Amino acid sequence: MVPHLITALTGPINELEQRMLDAMPAIERWFRLEWMEHTPPIYASAHLRNAGFKLAPVNTNLFPRGWNYLAEDMLPLAVQAAMAAIEKICPEARNLLIIPENHTRTPSYLANVVQLQRIFQRAGLNVRVGSIDPGVKKTERIELPNGDSVVLEPVIRTGGRLGLKHFDPCTILLNNELATGTPGILEDLYEQYLLPPLHAGATVRRKSTHFKCYEEVAKRFGKMLGIDHWLIHPISALCADVDWAQGQGIERLQSEVDALLAKVRRKYKEYGIHEKPFVILKADQGSYSTGAMPVHDAKELEALGRKARSKMAVTKDGLPVQAVLIQEGVSTQERVHEAVAEPVVYMMDRYVIGGVYRVHPERSMNENLNAPGASFVPLAFAHSTQMPQPGMRPGTSAPNRFYMYGVVARLAMLASSYELEATDPNAEVYD
Amino acid sequence: MVPHLITALTGPINELEQRMLDAMPAIERWFRLEWMEHTPPIYASAHLRNAGFKLAPVNTNLFPRGWNYLAEDMLPLAVQAAMAAIEKICPEARNLLIIPENHTRTPSYLANVVQLQRIFQRAGLNVRVGSIDPGVKKTERIELPNGDSVVLEPVIRTGGRLGLKHFDPCTILLNNELATGTPGILEDLYEQYLLPPLHAGATVRRKSTHFKCYEEVAKRFGKMLGIDHWLIHPISALCADVDWAQGQGIERLQSEVDALLAKVRRKYKEYGIHEKPFVILKADQGSYSTGAMPVHDAKELEALGRKARSKMAVTKDGLPVQAVLIQEGVSTQERVHEAVAEPVVYMMDRYVIGGVYRVHPERSMNENLNAPGASFVPLAFAHSTQMPQPGMRPGTSAPNRFYMYGVVARLAMLASSYELEATDPNAEVYD
Repeated sequence: MVPHLITALTGPINELEQRMLDAMPAIERWFRLEWMEHTPPIYASAHLRNAGFKLAPVNTNLFPRGWNYLAEDMLPLAVQAAMAAIEKICPEARNLLIIPENHTRTPSYLANVVQLQRIFQRAGLNVRVGSIDPGVKKTERIELPNGDSVVLEPVIRTGGRLGLKHFDPCTILLNNELATGTPGILEDLYEQYLLPPLHAGATVRRKSTHFKCYEEVAKRFGKMLGIDHWLIHPISALCADVDWAQGQGIERLQSEVDALLAKVRRKYKEYGIHEKPFVILKADQGSYSTGAMPVHDAKELEALGRKARSKMAVTKDGLPVQAVLIQEGVSTQERVHEAVAEPVVYMMDRYVIGGVYRVHPERSMNENLNAPGASFVPLAFAHSTQMPQPGMRPGTSAPNRFYMYGVVARLAMLASSYELEATDPNAEVYD
Repeated sequence: MVPHLITALTGPINELEQRMLDAMPAIERWFRLEWMEHTPPIYASAHLRNAGFKLAPVNTNLFPRGWNYLAEDMLPLAVQAAMAAIEKICPEARNLLIIPENHTRTPSYLANVVQLQRIFQRAGLNVRVGSIDPGVKKTERIELPNGDSVVLEPVIRTGGRLGLKHFDPCTILLNNELATGTPGILEDLYEQYLLPPLHAGATVRRKSTHFKCYEEVAKRFGKMLGIDHWLIHPISALCADVDWAQGQGIERLQSEVDALLAKVRRKYKEYGIHEKPFVILKADQGSYSTGAMPVHDAKELEALGRKARSKMAVTKDGLPVQAVLIQEGVSTQERVHEAVAEPVVYMMDRYVIGGVYRVHPERSMNENLNAPGASFVPLAFAHSTQMPQPGMRPGTSAPNRFYMYGVVARLAMLASSYELEATDPNAEVYD
């Protein structure tokens, strides 16, 4: 099930969307059975791009922030999903510790932390916020402009457990993508549930592994639905050992880009799409907020100036880029107030609980919207005026145009489950 | 977790309510652990009475109707709860059959059926409606005034399975309280999930057993919370072998009523309550919509006229009343537009998903509101204007005054789990 949110889609429903709407019971059953075999991450947000002819995830964030941007109506859904997650993970849970980003102190990020705290409090836990930033040495209350406040406490490591003064959590929720690597203070916490696990951290995770898993998921889903999985999947390739600074590996990268563009061109021809294909280059490792570069022609890489190259050479957090993910570019057809927009779907456990549009008025439909100037617009819940129409069959009258977003986002969530299973360093323990 | 609905409560928060609000994490954890041991019924509605000094359930309906009266915002919550229920009961489910009441064809009842169908459809099932009324011989589409329509099909029994033409459900949802007894067509369906089970039917279930289980639940909960369980429990007693028509057993009933009134009087004295105690007499078996009679003095029973007695002698469905449940009356302090109101809390699986007020402008605070002239007012979700107040701690600012209703309603749900376990005719099979 996907809540009925109002999307910016007003055009006719195309074949892909109609196929998903018609197959809703089969799709939901398919997910139910998948979740029996694969445990979803505690939470995730999937960034989607809808080109009209295809709809694909372009990244899956396992440390989602922006909970504060969601419509208020989603709160009960998030709480209910959090309850379901806790029941599975640790029904005896009393205390939950949230670990936020180390240095981010913007009011919007802290409002996100407050919202997460609120969700898990209402799910019936004592929730406190502990920083693993070594600079945080004493408890601090930070007031936010909206009237909320957050109390940030220094964490205390005692043997195999992490906690706060007089607070021993059974579950630790990471809202810190660990962009500079895995801190020792989080290692070997075998007595507590650490969610998501350390191998979901930004320096450990590889986007290429995620998209390989996503391709597998998309193929299986496509087979069930009877569609070409390309319609929901961005073709991806990995180019290892690229040294942007020294200019090494660039030729290899060019030929890989050429090869991928050729594949996309064939697909465009097959479907009669008259657009110019492009790819996006991203660092395979490192934070999702690291710059992504659109490339329409491999030759562009030769002409790259020193500035552009040095921008690609390190991640946002200063780590050197070695492997480059080449990903089919998916343009976005959606507009909110005439600005280019891409939907971001929020999930808690296996449930879709809300969505926002990331909007950037100064970017074009082929560009990355994760850039200064972007803003977020919550997707509202559809209300009765949009709901059943007289004379229509119940449930079919006003189609839920958010549904397909909820489906593709959950495919990305499922791919993350596959990914975390495949990369679990302790996997053999459970075999 | 209980969604934040707007109640009619505007007075100060009393001690009981404050205790529940403060203990929220402990209460939620207590429920989580209880639900590990006891499976909740698929759905239920709990009718509560709030006297100010005490809050108690007065009946727990295991075949709840009125889903159409709930606020529209609750739909996603109900769908998410239905998904969680299906995942536990039968994750492979494709088809669900709803069995409605046999003879009720009012638009409001059918709108309730449509809403249930919608909830389970959105949870990812193919849902059809099959009547077990032998009079329904062919498929019929009934149009409702609101533009919805419902297709009613005759059920087909084939060996050990029940279904429709070309429709073989794995789960059957009863929205029929089986007020005239268990029909043979529903017996021995060992291959399908029948929810709620047959021993929840109105002629099998005994209110006295439910309230005995409720007392056990209330005692355990009261101990955990450190409160006298009387504050959430209506004292009840059973008087067997009453023959209203012949006037037999009435004296015994009088002395039982006297004894119960004395108990209530002692409690009122203990708490300094200056109200006149009363009891409610109900048939121990039979539909919940069967008349309930308030009695302030056992002498009233002598003076009962023939008409009143013959009304008590048979249930709504014409079955003779034998055992009488004597229950402490709980007056209701709530008012909606100056009319006496009682909250009805809807639950799906273990989740509170919404509520309505049952309102009766012509009844007093001590009377049964289940009578002609009653209407339903949905409880709306609280929106941001009621939510966090500047300067207040998050989550504590605007107290959720629906919370205590959600707690007591879930205690009644839990008592139903105990009850159905204790009365399960096939229990030994699973031991």
